[in-house]
Order: sequence, then C-alpha cells, then structure tokens
Amino acid sequence: MGKDKEKQSIALKVPKGTKDWDGKDMVIRDKIFSTITQVFKRHGAVTIDTPVFELKDILTGKYGEDSKLIYDLKDQGGEICSLRYDLTVPFARWLAMNSSIQNIKRYHIAKVYRRDQPAMTKGRMREFYQCDFDIAGTYDPMLPDAEIIRITCEIFEALGWKGKYTIKLNHRKILDGIFQVCGVPTDKLRTISSAVDKLDKSPWEEVRREMTEDKGLDGEVADRIGEYCVRKGGRDLLDQLQKDATFTENQSAKEGLADMQLLFTYLDAFSVLDRVSFDLSLARGLDYYTGVIYEVITEGSAPQTKEGQEIQRTGKKEAKPNKHASNIDGDEDRSNDPTVGVGSVAAGGRYDNLVADFSKKQQIPCVGISFGVDRIFSITKQRLAADASAASIRMNEVDVYVMAFGGKGFEGLLAERMEVAKRLWDAGIKAEFSWKVKPKLPAQFKAAETNGVPFAIILGDDELAAGKCKIKEMGLPDGHAEKDGVLIEMANLETEVKTRVAQQAETLANGVNSMTLE
Amino acid sequence: MGKDKEKQSIALKVPKGTKDWDGKDMVIRDKIFSTITQVFKRHGAVTIDTPVFELKDILTGKYGEDSKLIYDLKDQGGEICSLRYDLTVPFARWLAMNSSIQNIKRYHIAKVYRRDQPAMTKGRMREFYQCDFDIAGTYDPMLPDAEIIRITCEIFEALGWKGKYTIKLNHRKILDGIFQVCGVPTDKLRTISSAVDKLDKSPWEEVRREMTEDKGLDGEVADRIGEYCVRKGGRDLLDQLQKDATFTENQSAKEGLADMQLLFTYLDAFSVLDRVSFDLSLARGLDYYTGVIYEVITEGSAPQTKEGQEIQRTGKKEAKPNKHASNIDGDEDRSNDPTVGVGSVAAGGRYDNLVADFSKKQQIPCVGISFGVDRIFSITKQRLAADASAASIRMNEVDVYVMAFGGKGFEGLLAERMEVAKRLWDAGIKAEFSWKVKPKLPAQFKAAETNGVPFAIILGDDELAAGKCKIKEMGLPDGHAEKDGVLIEMANLETEVKTRVAQQAETLANGVNSMTLE
Repeated sequence: MGKDKEKQSIALKVPKGTKDWDGKDMVIRDKIFSTITQVFKRHGAVTIDTPVFELKDILTGKYGEDSKLIYDLKDQGGEICSLRYDLTVPFARWLAMNSSIQNIKRYHIAKVYRRDQPAMTKGRMREFYQCDFDIAGTYDPMLPDAEIIRITCEIFEALGWKGKYTIKLNHRKILDGIFQVCGVPTDKLRTISSAVDKLDKSPWEEVRREMTEDKGLDGEVADRIGEYCVRKGGRDLLDQLQKDATFTENQSAKEGLADMQLLFTYLDAFSVLDRVSFDLSLARGLDYYTGVIYEVITEGSAPQTKEGQEIQRTGKKEAKPNKHASNIDGDEDRSNDPTVGVGSVAAGGRYDNLVADFSKKQQIPCVGISFGVDRIFSITKQRLAADASAASIRMNEVDVYVMAFGGKGFEGLLAERMEVAKRLWDAGIKAEFSWKVKPKLPAQFKAAETNGVPFAIILGDDELAAGKCKIKEMGLPDGHAEKDGVLIEMANLETEVKTRVAQQAETLANGVNSMTLE
Repeated sequence: MGKDKEKQSIALKVPKGTKDWDGKDMVIRDKIFSTITQVFKRHGAVTIDTPVFELKDILTGKYGEDSKLIYDLKDQGGEICSLRYDLTVPFARWLAMNSSIQNIKRYHIAKVYRRDQPAMTKGRMREFYQCDFDIAGTYDPMLPDAEIIRITCEIFEALGWKGKYTIKLNHRKILDGIFQVCGVPTDKLRTISSAVDKLDKSPWEEVRREMTEDKGLDGEVADRIGEYCVRKGGRDLLDQLQKDATFTENQSAKEGLADMQLLFTYLDAFSVLDRVSFDLSLARGLDYYTGVIYEVITEGSAPQTKEGQEIQRTGKKEAKPNKHASNIDGDEDRSNDPTVGVGSVAAGGRYDNLVADFSKKQQIPCVGISFGVDRIFSITKQRLAADASAASIRMNEVDVYVMAFGGKGFEGLLAERMEVAKRLWDAGIKAEFSWKVKPKLPAQFKAAETNGVPFAIILGDDELAAGKCKIKEMGLPDGHAEKDGVLIEMANLETEVKTRVAQQAETLANGVNSMTLE
C-alpha cells in the first residue's frame, strides 16, 4: 500500500511521531492485542478505561526527569489538562478515587503520549499503545509479583517468542542497599539510580562520568557501584549476595534479598525461572517503584554500533540516549540509526505508595507491567517479513462473494444478488456483492480474489429458474472435481454455505494457520 | 461500586465531561462494541486507526458553527495540533494521503473530543466514543447508501432494539431544492439549513424567529419552508413530491428525488424499508454532506418538557440547544434537565467532496454513518436496569478457582495450588487461586462466588495422597447429587475441567444468556 504524500496549501500529514494504522499492519496489531488480552483474561483480569487527558496536577511530580515530555492541552478556559504519559498513574488515581475497591486485577490497552524524539520503524513514537496489567491489593509477599512474571512469559510464548526473550529482574531495595553500602549520600539515591538505569544504553565509562562529573559523586563510590552493577545471573547471584556479610547487614538489602528468594521459589513453581536474569544494573527510570522491578528484552532491544555490533557496557562506542536528544522538534526520524535500539518490550515493577500519594485513605500496594505493543509489533512484522507468511494475511473476513453472470441481454440480477446477500447476512454469514447494476464476471472474481474470499455464490438466469445457484470454492487447482463449483438448491442456501465455511475453517485450523504469529 | 470522591491538596477527579469506565459498565460497553464490530465485519469492513490529534489545519473549516468546540493542544514548540472532533475528517485526510486506495469499507471505533456542555448520564460527554463505518469509492448510485442503512438496522437489531428505533432520512439536494423553490438566496442556503436542523430540538416558532430575525430571511420565505419541512412519511411523501410540478422543475430537487426513489427500491430489497422515515425537517448541522443524510432516533432521543412530555415542533416549550449553552465551563451537568434529550444514536450521510477538499488528485465519493456508543450505552443500561438482568453480568471470565483446605496443622498447600493453576493455564483454562500462603476455606469460596466463577478445584492432603482432587460446580442447589463436588484423578485434571466448562457453556448458550442485550 504505497503512500503518496502530497503538499497542498495545507500540509497533508499526521503530526510528528504519530502514524495511521491500516492494511495488514492493522490486522497484525489487532492479533497482538487479542493474544495479550486472552492471557490477561486467563488470569482473571477485568478492564477499565480512563480519559486520554487528566488534570495536569495529577501527572505532576510522577515522572522525574521525563516530565518535560508531557503533552499539555491549551488553556481554552476551565481546567488545565495534559495527555496521559502512561496508564499507571491514571490507574493509581482511579484507585484513590474509588475507596470501595480494595483489590483488583485490571488490564488496560490504550494510547499514551510522550513528546520524545521518534524512531518510527522501531516502534518509538509520540503516540503509542501500551498494554498494562496491574494487581492492586494486600496479599502475601511476592505472590502477585510471581504471577505477573508468569503472565509475561505466557504472553511472549503465545506471541511465538519462546527462547527469544529475557526478563531482567532486580529489586529497588537491593539497589538502595548497594548504593548505601557503597556510600552514596541519601539525597543522591534516586539521581544515581537514574544514572545506573542508562547502563543498557551507554557504556560504564559514560555512566561513571555522569555520576561523578554531572552529579558530584565521589569517584571511589562510583567504582564500588560499578563492581556491583555489572553482575547478573540467577539463583547463583542471589546466593553470592546472601553470603556478602557487609551487604546483608544493610536493612534494605536484606529485605530485598528475602523478597528475591521467595520470588525465585514461586517462579520455579510456575516453571518460568529459566526465563529470568537477575541483573543488578537494572534500575528503571521512574521514581515510584518500591520493590521488584523488571524489563523484558529481545533481539533488537539493545542499541548497536554503526557497524552492527551490539554496544557493550564496557565498550567505547557511545549510544545517544533517545530521551536526551537536543533537537526534539527537528525533522529527523532516528529509525535508521543503529545506535537507537528498540529498547525493552515490556517493563514494570512494584509501586506500593503511588495510590497513597493521591489519597492517604487508600493505602493499596500495587504491582504491574506494561507491554510496549508498538515495539512488539515492529519486531513481529520484521519476523513475518523474513518468513514471508505476511503474504497470506487477509485484510477482511468475508466468507462469500455473491456474483452473477449471463449472456447477451444480461441485466445484472441486482435484485437477486441483494436478496441472496440479505439471506446470508440474516444467517450471520459474512458476504459481499458488487455495487454495480451490471457487473462483469471477471471484475467480480477479481474483487473476491483480491480479498482472499474463500467462496463464491454464482447466480445465473437458468439456474435461478430451476431454483438453484452455484457455489464455488475459490482457488481450487485445475482438474479438481469441484473446480467449476457445484449446484445447490436456493432453498438450502444458508445451510449449504454454513457447512462449507465451517469445513474450511476446520481444515485451516488443523493445517497451517492463515496468519500465525508463531 | 460506590465512588468516594475526596478532595486532597490536589483535586482528585477526572476532567469535566470525561469519565472512568469500570465494573459492569465496562462489560456492557465492550459487549456493545463487539456486537457492532461483528456486523461491520459481516459486511466486509476493515479497520484503520488514526492519531488522537491532527494538525490543526486539517480540522479548520470542516465543522461550521461547531469549530469553537475543538480542543487544541498547547504550543510546546513544533506543530500546532488539535484533538480530533470526529472520525470522518481524519478518514478523509487518510484517503487523501493514500492515493493508491480507490475504494474501502472501513470501520473505526475510537474516542473523539468536543468542548461541549456535558450531560453525563445521557451519554453527552466531552470525551466519547464513536463507531464509524464509511464506504469510499465510485459505485452505481445509492447501492453503498442502501447497504449502510441495512447495516444500521442489523446493528440496532443485534442490540435488541427491534421496533424501538427509527431511521430519519432526507437528502441535501431535496433540501436545497426546497430552499431554492421557497426563495432562499443562494448565500443563505447553509445557514438556513442549520436553522432547520434545530427543528428536532426547538419548536417551529423559534426556528422561524432565528431565520427571520437572526439570519434576515423574508418572513414569507420562512413560512413556505415551514410548509415543506413539517412533512414526513415514506414512499407516499416521495410520490407527493414527485407530483409537485413547481418542485420537480428544480434541478437539485429532481436529482434528490431520483436518488430517493432508487434508495427506497433498494431498502425494500434489503427488507428494511419499514424502519425508515422520510423526514423533510432533517438537515444535519455539518457542512460537508452532499447527498442522502440520516439520523437514528429512539425513545429518549427527543428532549422533553419539564413535565415529561416530548417537546413537539408546534409546541410552545423551548428546549435549549446543548451546543449553544452560554456558560460552557460552568459546573452544572445537565443530566437531570428533561429538556436535554439523548439526541440521535447514530447519524451520517453522503459526502462526495470532502476528500477532494484535501487533495484535488483524490476525487473519492464517500458515504458513512457514526454510532454514538455512549448514548447507546446509556439507553442499554437503563433497559438492563429495568429488567434486572444486569445483576447476572459477570465481571471477569474465570472458569476455575483453585482452593485448598485441611484440618489442624494445615500448611495451605500453596505449591500444590500453584502447580494446579499452572497446569490449567498451560491448557488455556482461565483460573485463579488465593494469593495467601494459608487461606481459609470460606474466604476462598467467597472469592469464587463474588466473581461468579462456575467451578472450584478443591485440594486436600488425603485426596492428593491418593492422586485425586475434587471438582465442584458452584451454585448447585441443596440435594443435588454433585452438590459437594466429585473426585477426579489429578492425572486427568485438564480434560475433566475442559469437559465440564464446555458442557456448562453449551447449557448456557441454549438457555438464557448470562448477559443478553436483547
């Protein structure tokens, strides 16, 4: 579907960082949404929907350094509002407003807005979808947290990503323990955490420079942090840390390690322990996390050097973090810049105090995850293109194309085609016919073929006079007994069509799916 | 679900004219969306998705007097944008940008934004959903138009509104013919049309006053318009107009009548002629319509007097048109004002020039309809409340609650409950268990009952030792043979559960649906 963008007196385009979704992209995205929704529902989730804009005050102070990326509405009189930046803060605001709700598993699939520098084909946009799942309520430790990791695995496996993703795990209390043990002053905890968060995009030297030069941290303290934060592993790393006497003396570290111990036990019970990587460099930028944090990465998540190598934390190449591009309203799209990675495809964590920030009367601990659907889409589309299965994706779901043909003096049988279409619709069958009074037969076949419609009903004067019509399965090979269609009684139209459509659906379900994401 | 709105240092509320959707309302709204989507797909529609905001220039000059209701984004550097006001203009903009597309049937379900005076419980909001269906392309006359009326009937009948709705029909060319024949100067055609559009909300005297006093129309001309515009009917009215020699001499009127003649024939073929009312007072406010126009009304659409009578066009009571409320940012919500009706629940028409307005190279005629889902929701909810079937609406779709019980020394069987839940999820079964290490049995039953979960798996030490567990169908009456559940082999867990869930689904499908909109 080529796009011819034309310049008129007014610019004929969508706003920067946004896009129209259409054609096969839309079909693929809908399939991703329904796959994710199915998993959420399997775990008992309900959905809620909040407004696209919130009072500006609701968002203020929730996003740290990223607050400058919030879109505001113009003051046209009345309240001052901003477009939502994520779905988590509106969820917390909703919980704070609804004190009768003490626990909920909710999912929310909706658009969020960030005035960031876009990289469109990598799914980094200014308007993009998030799929959020959150559990609010007071429960025994780490059980909701473990179920969220399990749900995350079910989703990526339902999307066909088995073996192609890693869930990086860490804990805010362990990080705080590290910073305290290494000697970071209390007032620098969050800002140093922000610097550590950049380790997936920038080498250690750059992060160390930010800590010491920009943020005034003592070089030796930074080096001690460096020794901790490069470590990653599984239960082995947990065991090592639990044997580190200096570390476990720290109260925050001790609590974090106990949580991780329990979480690992539960992840094992859910058979997903092998999907996680305990990664001490994971910090997450947002201020509101209080416990376990996680981020899902896949091939293409990491930035690469111009030569196509993944940037190593210890390497010399420097990736420019997207959020800090100087020319935020410049024209360039950074899709072709290899040093911009797709980033994480899902991320989240525990935030026990956010609801109470809105209302002291509602003390509800929460844990959640947000799936970056547009990034998941970008990767899915690349994989589909690679195996050519995208070609078989149908644009619509029509089962039957109703057509007519005749010789000299053919009047088009419009009334009859309308009658047949009406009968099929009444029976719940998806059907189309040509909106021409006298359509040509090849044009009718072409319309059916273009959309991959599986069956044609063909009307002709002689057949109708005998109370019959023809049904033809499209795309049968030459020589097939039913290649030219079979005559059926008009009286049995609906039943005949339904039987064939059901048979074909069954055959497809048993064979290769017409659009598989796996 | 009670809402306790609390005032904090920051206002804990959603912006004026917007609302959160949750609980059963969300379930009902989702059901309305899926019902409508199913009908669109039955007619071969595909969906597209455009950004929530457009460049401001794209929206400028499209909405006549209503342009003042457009929300603008703040100028934060870069492009000047506005929130979309409807889905039609973005669709036309998309068509203009994609010249490879010469025809499409598309639907789009998404939120639109209008800075109007809200009446929340009547579904008049500042942020609200529209479900649009449009057909773009060059076809033989009135065939797409007729299919849209047919689709509209299928939707309202699928929603259970059979006999409770009317599709008012008119034609812009007939209206223009009336105005010309009555003597309206050419430069006043659109403004007089806007005045006629208010006849569903205001009595004729008020509309006449607007025409003559505000818009400077000659009183005799206004009276002649009045004689035409009160007329409504079906084919009889069409016949009368076709016999009116003065009227049919007018070129515009003649073309409009020919279209209506053809449309009536096609509506008859589609068995929906009895659902329409040819209504010469229907004008539609928007400037861009060029052909047939329609509006769907139902009980509650019309405003009423304070005494509960529907306002008659010839009556003396004056309804205040919503759009012209003077105090647009006042605090009042007009939900309880009987003189504010729900308004039309769907509306649309043919707009052949809108795409060409964006790009002269794309001359694509279009016809479409927009369903006001929030208004449809309001009416559906009132009807559900009236017949009490809302009580049976389930909040989530969980099939099985996994629980455990035991006597003295009971340790909660957490690992075993996790294992069973994991097996059920792996088999695609929707399941939950308590996030407590040692949950009490009554609490587990209560959790299952609150959500209407149909089955419980009950684990106990003795049964597990024998390789068994109990499955219990919830809500069986006292004395039922399986009231206390039946023992099954743990090895057959998934099959046993699937069989029972499928059986129950079949029973429900054959009996009363747990949530019927019909």
